Amino acid sequence: MQPATPLPGTQDLLFEGARRLRRCEAILCERFERAGYAEVIPPAIEAADVFGPEAFRALDRSGKLIALRADFTAQVARIAATRLAGVSPLRLYYRGSIVRRVAPDSGPVYERLQAGCELVGQGGPEADAELLALAASALHALGIKGRISLGSTGYFSALAAAAGASPRLADALNAAVDRKDLPTLRGLCEREVAPGKAREAILMLAQPPRPQTEARELLARAEALAPSDDALHALRGISAALAAARSLGAELEVDLGEVRGLGYYTGIVFNLYAMGSPRPVGGGGRYDTLLGRFGDPRPAVGFSLDLDALVPLAC
Amino acid sequence: MQPATPLPGTQDLLFEGARRLRRCEAILCERFERAGYAEVIPPAIEAADVFGPEAFRALDRSGKLIALRADFTAQVARIAATRLAGVSPLRLYYRGSIVRRVAPDSGPVYERLQAGCELVGQGGPEADAELLALAASALHALGIKGRISLGSTGYFSALAAAAGASPRLADALNAAVDRKDLPTLRGLCEREVAPGKAREAILMLAQPPRPQTEARELLARAEALAPSDDALHALRGISAALAAARSLGAELEVDLGEVRGLGYYTGIVFNLYAMGSPRPVGGGGRYDTLLGRFGDPRPAVGFSLDLDALVPLAC
Repeated sequence: MQPATPLPGTQDLLFEGARRLRRCEAILCERFERAGYAEVIPPAIEAADVFGPEAFRALDRSGKLIALRADFTAQVARIAATRLAGVSPLRLYYRGSIVRRVAPDSGPVYERLQAGCELVGQGGPEADAELLALAASALHALGIKGRISLGSTGYFSALAAAAGASPRLADALNAAVDRKDLPTLRGLCEREVAPGKAREAILMLAQPPRPQTEARELLARAEALAPSDDALHALRGISAALAAARSLGAELEVDLGEVRGLGYYTGIVFNLYAMGSPRPVGGGGRYDTLLGRFGDPRPAVGFSLDLDALVPLAC
Repeated sequence: MQPATPLPGTQDLLFEGARRLRRCEAILCERFERAGYAEVIPPAIEAADVFGPEAFRALDRSGKLIALRADFTAQVARIAATRLAGVSPLRLYYRGSIVRRVAPDSGPVYERLQAGCELVGQGGPEADAELLALAASALHALGIKGRISLGSTGYFSALAAAAGASPRLADALNAAVDRKDLPTLRGLCEREVAPGKAREAILMLAQPPRPQTEARELLARAEALAPSDDALHALRGISAALAAARSLGAELEVDLGEVRGLGYYTGIVFNLYAMGSPRPVGGGGRYDTLLGRFGDPRPAVGFSLDLDALVPLAC
């Protein structure tokens, strides 16, 4: 007899569960279309190197490796860089499922149902702000009170570089920042980082996120401590996005210790939260070098929503 | 630089292409829901043995094999046999993509966008006819003049068994029947099959499909030649489905040489055609033993539509 349950980390959606998902998808698609975004439907599989090591890989019958969709953004970047090369700006959205191999402690596999948007061909804070506003309005359309936690992927790296941290130390600092573990961070800094601006700036990373009203002050203090042009550049990216994103309809807070996973982000990064839920329900950021991997270097910014997490919260 | 095109056998749907697909999906879902079918959304991956050798397989991080969805019917059977065990009848529909490894001569991979229905828990011609009518009405709703070619998966096997054909001969006969290659079929029969009812019945398999008006006569002739109870049973399954399926809104024809691929069909099988298109745009059949593999032996019948083929033809 065959296994009769779905794989751990995946699920069957039946009846009301399926109806709720489709209703949320329809609300989001309507929202995205109204904002001028058009749907693209990429395939379920790609050449193996479109995705990172998180993707499942399999051999095709000619002996080549293929990979399961582990991320929509890389696929949209591939499409934008080829069939849509030269068309700027591009406003694209998608929906569907991604599948990833994950660390053994959280299970060997997971699937997520996602929907998201990518704005290709525009750098700068106005484009960042457009995506922040669209993400906020998408949550609002689902009847969810949203919160956006905004940071910059380059800021931590700039500080670690300025502090001359070894890869081992940078990893340890990163992990402490990610957990907001100030005692560990302080211990590491005191033992292994020379006193100075970089050390002070690193210690600020474990502070709790600041609401938009206090963010200017936080950013001004961080700018005063910026130990390098890279660090300053990252902070100014946050400031500019914040200034462009005036009234979002979602709470916006700044978290200098925001360290988002996927390797392709180059500027602002953000996590999306639903009020009352500790786990992010989505996120995004700027990725200005990803299209270049497919031969069409153009700036881009986007976000994705995890429908598995949002559907149970949606009205 | 990374490969910038989709894998051969897969495609990117953009803008109008995506809109047309979603419009067709919406039309079909509306049709299925009105007929009392409810959506199920199974995962993109399964335990490896849910699918046959056509599925891509990959290792998860715990060293177990997983498989990509190569077929919705097996997933719906798994769901029906577990979370929905004992609920009869079940009327379920699905939509999404399947991915398969195919023979080297037609390329190493393909993806199909599908939508389809399964009626679980009802044997007999009334259920067969319900699915034939629903498939016909689905094509009609898309503005496509449809044709259904009806046969029985067991009929060929019953004839080959009655003729005492070796596996090699049965394969050769099957291939000739599938190509409607009467000269080859005649040659094989004359050289390798003893004269008698079975041989005469096998020769009828290469005849062109007969429209519904001539089908009774064809079936009566075949029944007169039936060399075994199995062959008779298969023919009566076709006759009964034909009698139950009165006014379909699609042309219905009988093709005794209909030999559909997937291994789990046990009764009637059918291919769906759009007028003016030689390749099938879908198909289905009865599979009364598949749920038993998941511990819940119940009869079932279903069909799937290939949206890649239908969308360009739909109004």
